[in-house]
Amino acid sequence: MSGETFVGSYVLQRLRQLGLKSIFGVPGGNSSDLILRVTRFDHAPDYELALLDLIPKAGLEWKGNPNELNAAYAADGYARISNGVGALVTTYGPGELSALCGIAGAYCEYVPVLHIVGYPSVEIMNGHKIMHHSLGHGTFTEFHDMSKKICCATTVLMDAETAASEIDRVLNEMLYQSQPGYIGIPTDICYTNISSSSLQTPLQAELPGNDSGAEKIAVARIRELIETSSKPIIIVDGGATRNRVLSEVEGLCEVTKLPYFSNPWGKGAVSEAGNSFGGVYNGLGSKPDVKEAIESSDCVLWIGKLSSDFNTAEFTEYIKLDKVIEFQRFWISIDGRKVDLNMKSVLQKLNEHFQSTPLKLEHAWRSMPCTPYPKLESGVPSGKMTQAWLWPRFAGFLQSNDILVIETGTSQIGINETRFPKGLRAFTQTIFGSIGFAAGSSVGAFIAGKEQAGVNRNILITGEGSLQLTIQAFSDLLRHDLRPILFILNNGGYTIERVIHGLREEYNHVPMWKYGELLDAFGVGYETKAYQVRTCKEWDDILREKTFSEAPCAQVVEIFLDELDVPGALKAIGKMIDQKNAKK
Amino acid sequence: MSGETFVGSYVLQRLRQLGLKSIFGVPGGNSSDLILRVTRFDHAPDYELALLDLIPKAGLEWKGNPNELNAAYAADGYARISNGVGALVTTYGPGELSALCGIAGAYCEYVPVLHIVGYPSVEIMNGHKIMHHSLGHGTFTEFHDMSKKICCATTVLMDAETAASEIDRVLNEMLYQSQPGYIGIPTDICYTNISSSSLQTPLQAELPGNDSGAEKIAVARIRELIETSSKPIIIVDGGATRNRVLSEVEGLCEVTKLPYFSNPWGKGAVSEAGNSFGGVYNGLGSKPDVKEAIESSDCVLWIGKLSSDFNTAEFTEYIKLDKVIEFQRFWISIDGRKVDLNMKSVLQKLNEHFQSTPLKLEHAWRSMPCTPYPKLESGVPSGKMTQAWLWPRFAGFLQSNDILVIETGTSQIGINETRFPKGLRAFTQTIFGSIGFAAGSSVGAFIAGKEQAGVNRNILITGEGSLQLTIQAFSDLLRHDLRPILFILNNGGYTIERVIHGLREEYNHVPMWKYGELLDAFGVGYETKAYQVRTCKEWDDILREKTFSEAPCAQVVEIFLDELDVPGALKAIGKMIDQKNAKK
Repeated sequence: MSGETFVGSYVLQRLRQLGLKSIFGVPGGNSSDLILRVTRFDHAPDYELALLDLIPKAGLEWKGNPNELNAAYAADGYARISNGVGALVTTYGPGELSALCGIAGAYCEYVPVLHIVGYPSVEIMNGHKIMHHSLGHGTFTEFHDMSKKICCATTVLMDAETAASEIDRVLNEMLYQSQPGYIGIPTDICYTNISSSSLQTPLQAELPGNDSGAEKIAVARIRELIETSSKPIIIVDGGATRNRVLSEVEGLCEVTKLPYFSNPWGKGAVSEAGNSFGGVYNGLGSKPDVKEAIESSDCVLWIGKLSSDFNTAEFTEYIKLDKVIEFQRFWISIDGRKVDLNMKSVLQKLNEHFQSTPLKLEHAWRSMPCTPYPKLESGVPSGKMTQAWLWPRFAGFLQSNDILVIETGTSQIGINETRFPKGLRAFTQTIFGSIGFAAGSSVGAFIAGKEQAGVNRNILITGEGSLQLTIQAFSDLLRHDLRPILFILNNGGYTIERVIHGLREEYNHVPMWKYGELLDAFGVGYETKAYQVRTCKEWDDILREKTFSEAPCAQVVEIFLDELDVPGALKAIGKMIDQKNAKK
Repeated sequence: MSGETFVGSYVLQRLRQLGLKSIFGVPGGNSSDLILRVTRFDHAPDYELALLDLIPKAGLEWKGNPNELNAAYAADGYARISNGVGALVTTYGPGELSALCGIAGAYCEYVPVLHIVGYPSVEIMNGHKIMHHSLGHGTFTEFHDMSKKICCATTVLMDAETAASEIDRVLNEMLYQSQPGYIGIPTDICYTNISSSSLQTPLQAELPGNDSGAEKIAVARIRELIETSSKPIIIVDGGATRNRVLSEVEGLCEVTKLPYFSNPWGKGAVSEAGNSFGGVYNGLGSKPDVKEAIESSDCVLWIGKLSSDFNTAEFTEYIKLDKVIEFQRFWISIDGRKVDLNMKSVLQKLNEHFQSTPLKLEHAWRSMPCTPYPKLESGVPSGKMTQAWLWPRFAGFLQSNDILVIETGTSQIGINETRFPKGLRAFTQTIFGSIGFAAGSSVGAFIAGKEQAGVNRNILITGEGSLQLTIQAFSDLLRHDLRPILFILNNGGYTIERVIHGLREEYNHVPMWKYGELLDAFGVGYETKAYQVRTCKEWDDILREKTFSEAPCAQVVEIFLDELDVPGALKAIGKMIDQKNAKK
């Protein structure tokens, strides 16, 4: 890897070093036959096209998308399931702006996604020419300034001399913060030769280690707090997944044998199969016995906590905060005091310590204080499909090594009633909560799964209103032969707000689309199947069909639900608030 | 209109005063059943939903879209054809970010679009709660900062006391600059009562008048320059449309009888039917005699000039700049000197002056020095459809009072070979050049047309690659019963760059979709028809079918073109550059 390389190749080789195989985006050239034709002769083809030429040479595969929002979501989903980084390439201006919602979501949810933007040549920018895709002032800094707000590090490579160090700075910061980075590459800089020697210095993929003295004190104190409490528990939040401490957390749950729980953002992070799993905690939206078990605990090890509205049933969690030992990316807090210790290393030390010197839990409860999921009555009722019946039964369909992507909103709440099998990998965008994310990100998630061994099925659960934002994902799901099973919750073209908020049809009407026909029409020459489910019986029948459950081709299942029907958790929260209000 | 009104109603009533009837956007509530359910009791439903309740009360119609990018494009198209303003409502965070590409395009092309964003309540923002749709910091200023880069005026209404004056400030600046504005409305402020008295003070829709002395001097000098020149001409650029001086320009062309031309951004701004119309000037991409006529002129009245790459065939215009009299929104330039006179008033004065005292043009040419469009041989050739044959023949299909929306790229170049009938209204996004704009903006353009009397047919010309970004427009075109005729140029899934730049299929491949099936599947219960054209004969046959040309329902025509085929202008430019290069 000595000698020289193009600036454009340098960033791509860095991504390859981080384990990236597929890169997403939209070619800019489609928008500008003319400039391409005219400028090829001075080596400045349209914005990012020149860069795209270098992708296969760097050992990466281009996975182009129908639009940039879908590309950004795909890069996010790819990073989540590859457990590495994601990347997309867009063109300056319209291309990059169309991706910003996806980048902001990755920033909010700690997903390291590199946004590479193909800029006009330095000569053109310095000449202040009024170029297509610009704001028409002859200035080129505005879009970079916008991305600074939603990226942890950004650069536009105006000088090949400093390009390598700038690229490494942005990538290292992206890895350190686990948030998106932005690199703008002018067309002329892209093809400038620079030394490739620094490619031999690895990027900093891991956080620096902790002070061992401080770590010893923390470990001892955590042990003391657990042993002197009567109801110690572990809550695994989404931050455990996003900060890649899942193996450490699983080890901790095993070695301590403490009851452990997840919450909405952390749903699926840890195995729900074992007897030590207590259920999903979501404030007022929790099962009563799960809520009681957690809120009565006098020692809570809370890993990767993030208290947002959607992750706490609107801030209705009631846990004694002075009893919480909080584990975060860069710090932990014990006895209400923050200590600068990154949780990954502390969790490793805790594992080692409890293995060598097992916990003594004389005072602590020894049996699970609650049941994570209610017992299901057998048999299939006649009549309409309901959310109450649907969500617990999803468990019977899910299998180990499935990849499951869940849309925000109704699906995200309902899924907490679904017990996951061990080895299933699932995610949902709990914190940012952007509708359309699930379909878009599923493309990247399923592609990442395909690059790995042993993935079983690719499953998406979304709602019609959400799907409509990023329906183009159907095209990518077909052309990459991902054979997805697409569950679409369709409540008859009316969203639940209509009922709750009494909203007028004009704006809560979601147009009816023919989803089966759409799936088929978004490609040519692919096998697709479509199902519609209106009753519990129809649902039960489909799930029994091997030709369906073995996912031989792309399949869409439209599940029609009564527009008055909502998941149980939502009913519970609503009921308690109604009572609260009645008292006023 | 005295008494009180809600803050949310105030802004909507202001838009109604500006002639707005339809407002676009995406409800935020779909993304958050939960928060809506919980917060309705303290009157803070999800972000912009509360605002949407007020839309019908203000006499506006909600025209919801499948996603925010389509909504922003629709608002842009609506403003262009209504010749007024456009508006869209999105939710804080993901919603507004997804619209930014459309807003930036409107900024670049001087389209006044108001972006209304539904914010969390002031109480929540001041409490720094971690809300869905935010970046997860408990801060709420980042997205507003981003929009400041692409709007001429912005505000977030944190205080009802100043809400009315802030709303008026943003709207007046939007009208003054003819560029987008941004108003963030927190859910609690939205429903706060304020005095409606200032609604009786009209917004400043017109620019302030000019200094009459300076105007007289300018008019006299312009007359002198025209009369002492031998080849005076008028060029009508897109700025004439965007600054709403078309009636003044038409008057000037009539009263002076000077040869007049347009260029790509101005294509369709003035009648192409009369003998005084010389053709479209596009630098190297122009017809040789048109190019010669313009570049030999010694007095050029250039109205609404904008010299961007796409509007000048890559800066290949060769006009004697010292001979140009330039007319702009806020200034004109004569003898190379800028004067602070807005062009609208100066053009009115020129009209009055030349009517009362006709020009003496002894020295000037009296006959059109060039032919705007080549004579077409009659008869239909056998064999494949070609761009050379297609574009001039579009003229035979277009009718007076059609609305025509043209995509950037190939279509935008080809259309310059199509003579427009008088009364046709057309636009294309020449300066920003964002692919996907045409389909999205056509929804708003056609809705605006439907609100007016005497519109004939709704026609879109786009390319497959572009259409894929905003295909959801099909849904809106159906549900608003706009009966569009959708021409899709399909070059077999390969864009022209592949040929020119020798690009690899991986990234220039555009997936094949079934467009006819898609149009039908994007709605339920609408009549649709689909055609495919591969030969000149098939094209000719379809255009003769009354059942097609009378546009009885939504129709899509897929025109298959050889992937090696490009519009004539592109060939001409390429050829000249090849020659230039050969000389090197």
